[in-house]
Amino acid sequence: MKIGIDMMGGDFAPLEAVKGVKAYLKTSSASSLCLIGDKSMLEKLLLEHGIDPTTLFIQHAASVIGMHEHPTKALKEKTDSSIAVGFGLLAANKIDAFLSAGNTGAMLVGTHFSIKPLEGVIRPTISTIIPKVDGKTGILLDVGLNADCKPEQLNQSALMGTIYAQQILGIENPTTGLINVGEEEGKGNQLAQATYPLLKENSSIQFIGNIEGRDILQSKADVMVCDGFTGNIILKMAESIYDIAKQQQIQNAYFDRFNFEDYGGTPILGVAKPVLIGHGISGEKAFLNMLLLAKKMIEKDVMNTLQKALQA
Amino acid sequence: MKIGIDMMGGDFAPLEAVKGVKAYLKTSSASSLCLIGDKSMLEKLLLEHGIDPTTLFIQHAASVIGMHEHPTKALKEKTDSSIAVGFGLLAANKIDAFLSAGNTGAMLVGTHFSIKPLEGVIRPTISTIIPKVDGKTGILLDVGLNADCKPEQLNQSALMGTIYAQQILGIENPTTGLINVGEEEGKGNQLAQATYPLLKENSSIQFIGNIEGRDILQSKADVMVCDGFTGNIILKMAESIYDIAKQQQIQNAYFDRFNFEDYGGTPILGVAKPVLIGHGISGEKAFLNMLLLAKKMIEKDVMNTLQKALQA
Repeated sequence: MKIGIDMMGGDFAPLEAVKGVKAYLKTSSASSLCLIGDKSMLEKLLLEHGIDPTTLFIQHAASVIGMHEHPTKALKEKTDSSIAVGFGLLAANKIDAFLSAGNTGAMLVGTHFSIKPLEGVIRPTISTIIPKVDGKTGILLDVGLNADCKPEQLNQSALMGTIYAQQILGIENPTTGLINVGEEEGKGNQLAQATYPLLKENSSIQFIGNIEGRDILQSKADVMVCDGFTGNIILKMAESIYDIAKQQQIQNAYFDRFNFEDYGGTPILGVAKPVLIGHGISGEKAFLNMLLLAKKMIEKDVMNTLQKALQA
Repeated sequence: MKIGIDMMGGDFAPLEAVKGVKAYLKTSSASSLCLIGDKSMLEKLLLEHGIDPTTLFIQHAASVIGMHEHPTKALKEKTDSSIAVGFGLLAANKIDAFLSAGNTGAMLVGTHFSIKPLEGVIRPTISTIIPKVDGKTGILLDVGLNADCKPEQLNQSALMGTIYAQQILGIENPTTGLINVGEEEGKGNQLAQATYPLLKENSSIQFIGNIEGRDILQSKADVMVCDGFTGNIILKMAESIYDIAKQQQIQNAYFDRFNFEDYGGTPILGVAKPVLIGHGISGEKAFLNMLLLAKKMIEKDVMNTLQKALQA
């Protein structure tokens, strides 16, 4: 197993990435890593943090795609950037997963052009973990990759979310809810109305019906599906509530669980290999958790399970 | 001025409605009210609360539309219900505003069939107050009346929200933001992409561009527009955060401002007369604040200002 990590992406890279790698090495083997970035800079930083650089595989990448660069343009022009090099390694099967806290757009475009979608997937999707108030954990998707969705996409999201919840979140029989404005069948916008019967008929998921905005943080459904526009607003609003709680000096274990660092990054679901997108402000803990998530996804062979489910 | 109040609608009516009326009478005249409901029951309750029933105008209504009855069916069959009677009075100009904490659907259907839309309005809309973390107050619309919207509707929402923010919230030059998944023009789903240029060209509003989920609780824009599907999810998620904060025994002045009782009800904007819809679980404070809001809307002649703005 080899996990490729973009050491240069993110507001606090490469320092926090190095710290994350150091924390990862406490429980995992150095051979499972491929560090991508400025080799001499990384070697120096690793040494400073008590890691012998010769024990790690470092793939040199001379440049970095900035957080605000145009994704397609940057990827095309900066072929020696850590993200471009990472996708090159992933496409050539030299690494089994790739993660970065860098330019999100470049990660999406890179995935689109370098990694095949799983057979039968209409469009890949991205998700987020939603902490539930009773201590459980749910998954919400799509959170922004597809602003406009077709009912069939939401139906696939439900399936992919179900598999992910089983394999990664450890939920044996995940329930699925359709995010909507009312509980009854027939409620909602055209998309929700057309999606409901598809979910109802989908025997690969455990559909419990519509869930409302007030149910998102409650344990009504483990897998919550909606279009990427709605999901993105929900995700960013949830993140802002964490920030506000911190700012208001609220000490509360539940609100603390909204800290994205605990989850690391979000995988792109529906493509052949794990690609994990981290938050721009990722620190040591986020990098560590992204590495552990990538490891788990490879070990559980999640993408293969998804492929089988999609073809069932 | 005469405000019609459905005394029988809501989970805690008529008791809490009577308490709300009592609180209202401390600052406002009895002649500004028309109580609608079971006359003998109301007279008894008023007496018990130290109010002489003969000082108030009570319009008898023999039945009540239950919270879960089918709106159209109930309105048609229960012509002696407090909501049906209220709309009858409003349509006959015997009252100048009507408010209820009862069956929301019946309030919407009643409005649709009894009260004319303002000239030029594509579709009426409903809004919610959003408390901002810096102490300010914003308005979000639509929050559920129109699950699928056209760009022109969002443009009208921006105008109606601007007038409401000026007249009722006392914001002199309200800014408008388009709820979206990214800051840049061109981002978003088809609706948001098509709405942006309309808002940009609308000289009756002060458009500041896209706002994201993380900006909703921040003071980025006073008026926040989106389709009713997205708005409904945001509203109900915000309400659930208040409930969770209470449940987690969080003492915080900001989260306390999410208490819907402080705002009373939400008016339907875009119709000729003020119709206010209260929360089913309205208590004394919510009824009081609904009455005060209705009074303010009549005094400021908000509907007329809206009509002029729509025709400008």
